[in-house]
Amino acid sequence: MSGIYDVAILGSGPGGLQAAIHSSRKKARVLMLGRIDNSSLYWAHVENYCCQVKISGEEVLRTGREQAENFGTEFRDEDVLTIEPDGSLFSIKLESGDVVKSKTVILATGSSRNKLKVPGEKELLGKGVSYCVDCDAGFYRDEIVAVAGCRSAAAGGAVALTNFASEVHLYCEELDVAEGLRKQLIDTGVHVHEGVKIEEILGETAVTGVKLDDGSTMDVSGVFIELGAKGVLELTAMLGVQLDENMKYIEADKKQRTSVPGVYAAGDICGPPLQMAKAVGEGCVAGIEAATYAKKMEVE
Amino acid sequence: MSGIYDVAILGSGPGGLQAAIHSSRKKARVLMLGRIDNSSLYWAHVENYCCQVKISGEEVLRTGREQAENFGTEFRDEDVLTIEPDGSLFSIKLESGDVVKSKTVILATGSSRNKLKVPGEKELLGKGVSYCVDCDAGFYRDEIVAVAGCRSAAAGGAVALTNFASEVHLYCEELDVAEGLRKQLIDTGVHVHEGVKIEEILGETAVTGVKLDDGSTMDVSGVFIELGAKGVLELTAMLGVQLDENMKYIEADKKQRTSVPGVYAAGDICGPPLQMAKAVGEGCVAGIEAATYAKKMEVE
Repeated sequence: MSGIYDVAILGSGPGGLQAAIHSSRKKARVLMLGRIDNSSLYWAHVENYCCQVKISGEEVLRTGREQAENFGTEFRDEDVLTIEPDGSLFSIKLESGDVVKSKTVILATGSSRNKLKVPGEKELLGKGVSYCVDCDAGFYRDEIVAVAGCRSAAAGGAVALTNFASEVHLYCEELDVAEGLRKQLIDTGVHVHEGVKIEEILGETAVTGVKLDDGSTMDVSGVFIELGAKGVLELTAMLGVQLDENMKYIEADKKQRTSVPGVYAAGDICGPPLQMAKAVGEGCVAGIEAATYAKKMEVE
Repeated sequence: MSGIYDVAILGSGPGGLQAAIHSSRKKARVLMLGRIDNSSLYWAHVENYCCQVKISGEEVLRTGREQAENFGTEFRDEDVLTIEPDGSLFSIKLESGDVVKSKTVILATGSSRNKLKVPGEKELLGKGVSYCVDCDAGFYRDEIVAVAGCRSAAAGGAVALTNFASEVHLYCEELDVAEGLRKQLIDTGVHVHEGVKIEEILGETAVTGVKLDDGSTMDVSGVFIELGAKGVLELTAMLGVQLDENMKYIEADKKQRTSVPGVYAAGDICGPPLQMAKAVGEGCVAGIEAATYAKKMEVE
């Protein structure tokens, strides 16, 4: 693995793929890092992305990878251990121990959601378990759903779900939201179960219910886990990239530049809406900008 | 046509369609205005949009429309004559004379390029005639191409084309670019023909050459027309929407808000990169923001 890349892309989702397509089209030497099934999209179904009718996330990602490869992007199915500035370059250490160097970096690792850590959660992901109300609420029209979480993400999600679901049950140890949101929960008829925790998510091929820590069970066809996002911090700390005011997402401008020259960001890592369409749009801009930045370094 | 819409979308391209999908998903009442074949994409081929392999622009647009319709978007295949503030609403007059009212407006009418106005230009659009180097350069690998235009868009486009085409001929009355760009034209081997105009674009089913005003002809397989963008001005003037410093594109923030509350913008109308991926990303954000704004008006 010799030579220096123009653009190294961390993350294997649609934002990273679109960045790879556009920077490769600009004749940059592009390396994409990450495992395809790390993308939250891999397990999902896509129905609100223009202009494709219902297809699987896996299919979307495989097609995107093929496109990027055809334009010249190199792929390594490895996660990144460390990343640090190295003179005017960036030095990236991979799982295998290999170290690659790149003139620019695009952070597109998504927003790894906090897990509920109960049996059934991993097994039923994409089969009734979701970490994104905005993405999946529409699948639960006239169904009964559960939401896990105590803060605004969970309460706001529960309220939004009442537009679709026939019944919404919010489970949380102690509700910790502002008065206005608490009132909305009441007004929209959300069933709030304080002090009750989900112990297990039930179902074989799809979610059929939840088992609660008071011994009872409840029949539901969807479970939304809304415990907030994390995981961005480690990566950004190594690079000194600035986060937004809530320290949850990367702060990027309209050209997808972060606070560190040569470092760009795209997709869910930049914050909501956590939608494939937004990720792809940001990836397009980040890919073009990073390739242009790398070309300028050659001239100087 | 009674009642008030939550969101009226002007324009029928991918930015508008993605906005329609996301605002309809948010249960907003959405009207999309414009003729599908007005979109510059209609005549194009799509190959750098994640995650779809080569398909026609027409196919993309028809699929997107079907998606939006399934989520509840209404369509009227009419252009907009006038649009103006009407109390807290917007009043939109259509070709048919009908007037519709909406709480919010999303401007997604693209960037209508200046035409060269020569025979063959319209007939061969998408068959060798292009208004976007960034979009179409990759189709002309090892081919001979012509570029029409005298300013930075044309000269920069010609330089970029040298990465793909075997020969690039720039035709313009008088070159009007900065010294650095003039030097790049020389360094990259662009053939600059000053004082020579393209009189006709030749070809039956695809571009085969150009006829010049000195009586000669030149065999080329592509003609890029880069005379800058216009057409945004009329629409924005009616609404008082602020343009960018060059008065070419609409100034929108990261939430796709313009300077006028309730008016959003998405896609090429917001400026480069003029890419489908970017349009779709901005459409996603504009659709969600406009629907949210309209819902808030109900409460107040």
